[in-house]
Amino acid sequence: MPQFGDLVILASPRGKRHIYRLDPNQDIHTQDGVLRAADIAAAEFGTEVRTAKNVPFRLEQPQLFDLVMGIKRQTQIMYPKDMGLICFKLGVGNGRTILEAGSGSGGFTIALSWFSGPNGHVHTFEAREEFHKLAKRNLDWAGVGQNVTLHHRDISNGFGIDDPEILNGQKGDALFLDVRTPWEYLGHARAALKPGAPIAFLLPTVEQVSELIHALELEPFEETEVCEILVRPWKVVPGRLRPNDRMAAHTAFLVFTRIQERSADWDALIPLGTRERKQEAARQARLAEARGEECDYEV
Amino acid sequence: MPQFGDLVILASPRGKRHIYRLDPNQDIHTQDGVLRAADIAAAEFGTEVRTAKNVPFRLEQPQLFDLVMGIKRQTQIMYPKDMGLICFKLGVGNGRTILEAGSGSGGFTIALSWFSGPNGHVHTFEAREEFHKLAKRNLDWAGVGQNVTLHHRDISNGFGIDDPEILNGQKGDALFLDVRTPWEYLGHARAALKPGAPIAFLLPTVEQVSELIHALELEPFEETEVCEILVRPWKVVPGRLRPNDRMAAHTAFLVFTRIQERSADWDALIPLGTRERKQEAARQARLAEARGEECDYEV
Amino acid sequence: MPQFGDLVILASPRGKRHIYRLDPNQDIHTQDGVLRAADIAAAEFGTEVRTAKNVPFRLEQPQLFDLVMGIKRQTQIMYPKDMGLICFKLGVGNGRTILEAGSGSGGFTIALSWFSGPNGHVHTFEAREEFHKLAKRNLDWAGVGQNVTLHHRDISNGFGIDDPEILNGQKGDALFLDVRTPWEYLGHARAALKPGAPIAFLLPTVEQVSELIHALELEPFEETEVCEILVRPWKVVPGRLRPNDRMAAHTAFLVFTRIQERSADWDALIPLGTRERKQEAARQARLAEARGEECDYEV
Amino acid sequence: MPQFGDLVILASPRGKRHIYRLDPNQDIHTQDGVLRAADIAAAEFGTEVRTAKNVPFRLEQPQLFDLVMGIKRQTQIMYPKDMGLICFKLGVGNGRTILEAGSGSGGFTIALSWFSGPNGHVHTFEAREEFHKLAKRNLDWAGVGQNVTLHHRDISNGFGIDDPEILNGQKGDALFLDVRTPWEYLGHARAALKPGAPIAFLLPTVEQVSELIHALELEPFEETEVCEILVRPWKVVPGRLRPNDRMAAHTAFLVFTRIQERSADWDALIPLGTRERKQEAARQARLAEARGEECDYEV
Repeated sequence: MPQFGDLVILASPRGKRHIYRLDPNQDIHTQDGVLRAADIAAAEFGTEVRTAKNVPFRLEQPQLFDLVMGIKRQTQIMYPKDMGLICFKLGVGNGRTILEAGSGSGGFTIALSWFSGPNGHVHTFEAREEFHKLAKRNLDWAGVGQNVTLHHRDISNGFGIDDPEILNGQKGDALFLDVRTPWEYLGHARAALKPGAPIAFLLPTVEQVSELIHALELEPFEETEVCEILVRPWKVVPGRLRPNDRMAAHTAFLVFTRIQERSADWDALIPLGTRERKQEAARQARLAEARGEECDYEV
Repeated sequence: MPQFGDLVILASPRGKRHIYRLDPNQDIHTQDGVLRAADIAAAEFGTEVRTAKNVPFRLEQPQLFDLVMGIKRQTQIMYPKDMGLICFKLGVGNGRTILEAGSGSGGFTIALSWFSGPNGHVHTFEAREEFHKLAKRNLDWAGVGQNVTLHHRDISNGFGIDDPEILNGQKGDALFLDVRTPWEYLGHARAALKPGAPIAFLLPTVEQVSELIHALELEPFEETEVCEILVRPWKVVPGRLRPNDRMAAHTAFLVFTRIQERSADWDALIPLGTRERKQEAARQARLAEARGEECDYEV
Repeated sequence: MPQFGDLVILASPRGKRHIYRLDPNQDIHTQDGVLRAADIAAAEFGTEVRTAKNVPFRLEQPQLFDLVMGIKRQTQIMYPKDMGLICFKLGVGNGRTILEAGSGSGGFTIALSWFSGPNGHVHTFEAREEFHKLAKRNLDWAGVGQNVTLHHRDISNGFGIDDPEILNGQKGDALFLDVRTPWEYLGHARAALKPGAPIAFLLPTVEQVSELIHALELEPFEETEVCEILVRPWKVVPGRLRPNDRMAAHTAFLVFTRIQERSADWDALIPLGTRERKQEAARQARLAEARGEECDYEV
Repeated sequence: MPQFGDLVILASPRGKRHIYRLDPNQDIHTQDGVLRAADIAAAEFGTEVRTAKNVPFRLEQPQLFDLVMGIKRQTQIMYPKDMGLICFKLGVGNGRTILEAGSGSGGFTIALSWFSGPNGHVHTFEAREEFHKLAKRNLDWAGVGQNVTLHHRDISNGFGIDDPEILNGQKGDALFLDVRTPWEYLGHARAALKPGAPIAFLLPTVEQVSELIHALELEPFEETEVCEILVRPWKVVPGRLRPNDRMAAHTAFLVFTRIQERSADWDALIPLGTRERKQEAARQARLAEARGEECDYEV
């Protein structure tokens, strides 16, 4: 049963569906009449509440999906499909310290806060004040954020790892780096993270991905992966089951990497003649080119 | 720095990558020589450890992704891409009580435990003893499960909502129902869940999805959704960036629904002439057919 | 240079793009002024023509893609992505006789006519008079159809293989069977086709596909394949290259099969223990069930 | 019924499927015994032929799909899914003159020849002698190519439009330009094509697509489109219908454009404030940058 102060979803026969905060002093005015706050508070989720005009509305409990999709946004939307895999790859969870930059509208910060639990912590950085404030508002709205510190800070000056008012020497377990030119912050990222920490990136264009993976190759990062996630919705029509006519074709490319040293003789131990060896030869050629040298590498 | 008893990943120049539990009394024997446990324990994640033959291995920290993909399996694999969205739709998180049936190999149970945190709880049900035991072993292996109760029980007898040794009257906030014929358990599911609770299903074939959505329509469930998630991996070759040649084409269809009452006059309030109205007319026709009646419904 | 009577595409700076038939007696009236037919006829494709208000329009030559997408439609649209693969699987081309049912709006009939060339022939069948006439109009509009015979006929009475006014004993090399319940016409299809002929089907829902493949299994058809084709469009923005935000998620499922006898001892020769053998065992079980028998088959 | 000299497909209960040329003097030796050429020639397609050991083989007629997939290849494979859409966009068909470079293994040349019919013509260019010869062999093998001229020529010297032994002034209706660096040949392409002709490109990597669309923007080409085609195969198991586990994730990106003039005042006529206008502003900025100028353009 919803409590005053909770968020609730109300859905009408017209197909409208909105999230409201339940306020004892504020009835909800709809096209189909007034929904009394007291009536809502007295109803169970999964039942219907009637307006003064006797029109039924479904009373639903918002889940994490509804929260991250329901925020006010001034930035590019980020979707649960992408958030989910990132949380698995970064190991977001109880007891972990996760860094995020930028905060954007705070949609993913809500999910990070949610999954990090009471013993985890999220440090989120945002250079633009309007987004910093928006992210704060959205965390408050969603009723999460007790384990989040929002930093209004441009990370081109680093993550403040040694600053007593910022990270104060507490390195992150993982980083979600969602900025337009992530390759410019790789050094700062390494300084702010524990050894071996995973990093995830979200990039809309292939040119960005191309530039990022070039940069990752030149620094101590390994196991870089790139993927994209597509969700295909289906029409729920019994007896006429089929995919929807339209779907989202693209949100962003996901890039994952890990901070990892690589010793000089690693390459030499890749077995001759294997696919890995050929990939390594191509890599050595690129690195040699980047250093302005000739490459002479046995495949 | 890894502790004895922790899981660690060791990756070789040959491209092999394995998870081990770090045991002070057990060195790791590889094709390239012995890795001493003491050496591993003295190294940082993200660095390399050398075998007795001086071959370097990367020392990595397993993340949630690695845990759920690294379990021993006797059942169909379930992937993080699907797990992630399900957690968002079910609101898996701190303080929530999540039901799961069946446990299978326990891969998703690990994720449910991980995200539920110290104040959440997971009840997972499994009819077959070998899977029940396997799930237990995998939770122990992953070092999670403190917030999980594993029930060796066939849910065709219900979730034991009133049984003092099972749920003892504590209803679940959400359910993941991963069985071959989920339509047979909808009544038991409703009995074991709080009002309005969300349910997720995972089904490999379209005939199953078709049968399930027929059944959901006949009971108090609403907002049923069906989707599938595709992950397209890319080749990380700087200057030659492109998708992989091959990808997974299918794991399973995801179905989401919510327990929800629907009053008799709801239908009549859907605006005439709208798409929703036409869908409702088709629904009424199916329901009438299921009841052996004629349908006369105004569109 | 376009000739009077040709179709031409005219595209404006506003982003509008229309196909017109060039008629010496009919100037084209646009929002931006009149385009004189004589001016168009005097211009080259790939150049611009100016209206009386001096607004430039691009003059383009319609290709087959533009023709099949530009027809008047009263039926479900069929897309070049699907048409293309069907033509390869059916062997549509010079000298071949292709059967099609139903004609629908004639979009695919245009493509069949186009690729069949002067020595090929297309027989297309349509039960509904309005579509039969529409298909004829669209073929005329596209300037093809010299090698097409349009039959206004319900194929539940067969393809008229022995009727001197219809196929007159001339069997088809291949069939495109685009009807709602294709499993009802398999016998008629076999009667109208040469031995071993390929057949393609286009079906929107999975229940239809499921029913069709059940039916194909009970008759002499082999090598049945099912697939779906997705086209992902990209945004052509140099330096910001990425897929479009939205795409078509579904048009229809394609099913391909071949008429093929299967002798009784075929099954017994599939090597024991192979995947093919297991598939055969499942098939034998289904066939036995369809006949109301017990199945006892060695895997 | 197959004729001597025809290609035939023979498929065994073991799941093997091969294309052979039917030769009266050459019986076919299989693992399961000899198939006599005379027996094959006496059988109908869609029936079975027996080896000397009484093992049945299915006798099937190769369709265009089987031909293009069955060639000997020394180059990257090109798939019917991509070929089909290209033929629709280029208007390949009876009476058209199509240019292709390079020939590669000749797989697409077979399809171009097939669809172009007796009144169409294909000029295919290949710089490397081994591929030029291979393409010729594959056309002969497929029994097509009467309407094809194979040129052993490096198109960095142009398409030989004025050379009496090559195109001899006969411009192409369309071009398929399948080379690694297509942006280097755009001028030659325009010289060899009729005004307004469409061009299609096939490129494996996104860096190539990025470079090509930059180049197209600087020359008289318009309506450039980029897409990729995915075919998802399904498992044909009645009652257990679902997509395959694995699929091809990528073959190549398709790029389409048209030769098209653009007059100086075209841009100014795009309505202010529209999406097209914003795209045009970005384009003007890129063009200005390419010319080393400042851009001052009203959006």
